[in-house]
Amino acid sequence: MENIPASHHARLLCRQNQLTNTAGIAPGYLQANLLVLPAKYAADFHDLCLRNPVPCPLLGMTSVPGDASAIQPSKCIQSQDFDIRTDFPKYRVYSGGKFIEGRRNLLDVWREDHVGFLIGCSFSFEDALAAAGLPPRHHKTGTIVAMYRSNIPLLPAGIFTGGHCIVSMRPYRPEDIERVRDITRVYRLTHGEPVAWGWDGAKQLGIVDIDKPDFGEPQSFDEGEVPVFWACGVTPQIAVEAASDKIEGLVFAHEPGHMLITDWTADILQRLKLGIV
Amino acid sequence: MENIPASHHARLLCRQNQLTNTAGIAPGYLQANLLVLPAKYAADFHDLCLRNPVPCPLLGMTSVPGDASAIQPSKCIQSQDFDIRTDFPKYRVYSGGKFIEGRRNLLDVWREDHVGFLIGCSFSFEDALAAAGLPPRHHKTGTIVAMYRSNIPLLPAGIFTGGHCIVSMRPYRPEDIERVRDITRVYRLTHGEPVAWGWDGAKQLGIVDIDKPDFGEPQSFDEGEVPVFWACGVTPQIAVEAASDKIEGLVFAHEPGHMLITDWTADILQRLKLGIV
Repeated sequence: MENIPASHHARLLCRQNQLTNTAGIAPGYLQANLLVLPAKYAADFHDLCLRNPVPCPLLGMTSVPGDASAIQPSKCIQSQDFDIRTDFPKYRVYSGGKFIEGRRNLLDVWREDHVGFLIGCSFSFEDALAAAGLPPRHHKTGTIVAMYRSNIPLLPAGIFTGGHCIVSMRPYRPEDIERVRDITRVYRLTHGEPVAWGWDGAKQLGIVDIDKPDFGEPQSFDEGEVPVFWACGVTPQIAVEAASDKIEGLVFAHEPGHMLITDWTADILQRLKLGIV
Repeated sequence: MENIPASHHARLLCRQNQLTNTAGIAPGYLQANLLVLPAKYAADFHDLCLRNPVPCPLLGMTSVPGDASAIQPSKCIQSQDFDIRTDFPKYRVYSGGKFIEGRRNLLDVWREDHVGFLIGCSFSFEDALAAAGLPPRHHKTGTIVAMYRSNIPLLPAGIFTGGHCIVSMRPYRPEDIERVRDITRVYRLTHGEPVAWGWDGAKQLGIVDIDKPDFGEPQSFDEGEVPVFWACGVTPQIAVEAASDKIEGLVFAHEPGHMLITDWTADILQRLKLGIV
């Protein structure tokens, strides 16, 4: 293999379906969730992301409908050979809001009006928590993080109305919460600091039974630990499902856990300090 | 008066306290609310804006603590003589979350660690609604727009926790709502499209009596009209008040209705289409 960035190398392995799960791959590079929609819904979905940047942080998007290779901003994906239809390890195909099939690539189903969106993923802040000696419980237990439907409304955008924020939950000791908040705060493009914490926080989010997550697996609590909730990248997928009766044409997403390795590194967090154009 | 942009001209009039209300002044230029905080709270407040861009849209901020003249991004304010302490028509001074006094300028109270934030104001989308034949009711009746505390949580950022979104309300006919949504959607830096609408929408926001707004004045409804709610620029001020027990030092805001005329024009709405760095 020639001398290329670890992110590009990882994408090539994904393209060849040689990686099944991208957790821990190419540390330091932000990973992305995928949503692909027909172009006529793209402006509304883009607005949904801009209006709800904590659950739906937009890392990049395809530049021209139907073009699977050019991503803006160009720093997000810097290799010339990029193809959004092949460079995730696995994909899911939806029609009318229903899951149709899993796929290794989208080459046969991609249409000339498809637009792809890359959404930030929590892997990056989980690495930072682990590095600080505060690893997420599901890393230690080998489970899938617990996710819940919350009562935090998604601010509506065009056809995307009536949605709510999905939250992920990691147990921590109350005395660690301020440090957990501080560590994750800077990861603004990957959900940032928690949206709520403690048993009161669970109540405020409308979560009645912490042992019955809506997605993922229940997490074990050690003595005295309380739940800490972050906005979750499953949110935009659920919003698209909820709007499915208004969407004609195929919609694509990544297979959970099978993300895209982008070329964004931690330096974007610094440049984002201003956060305005 | 030499040949200068209408926005700059308006700022000079405000500096001389020759304007008492900026509604309708310098059409086409975005107007801004003000919040000034001691520097040690600036990062948290900045995060609050980035995480809640619909109620707290950040147009610009001072570049260096204590420096009252340089605004970033530089396109926001382009005149060299700018002074954030004088170029709003009127100011309010707060200590410990309590209103202390009104002021014509901040020259005597500004400290070397103060940081100023410019927040988008709904005047610009109201002009667009009026131009489309859908003027807000309070324009016609000469009242102050009705504002309510909603149950939409502000996503927490540092010391700013537990806040909620303030919403403004304008009555419209149900058949006009999609047009109202479309017209205001593009004004992303001035609250964008509504967050809820209809009597169901009021209920979802937790508003029990539409005739008893928490701020401003009640609005009259014509036969068949329903309430339409937008996120409101009073939100960041209330968030700062709510955090007042954690804030040492003076906080400043503009006098309601007495905004800053910025040099941002509608072209920013186009450039914001991407919305990411």
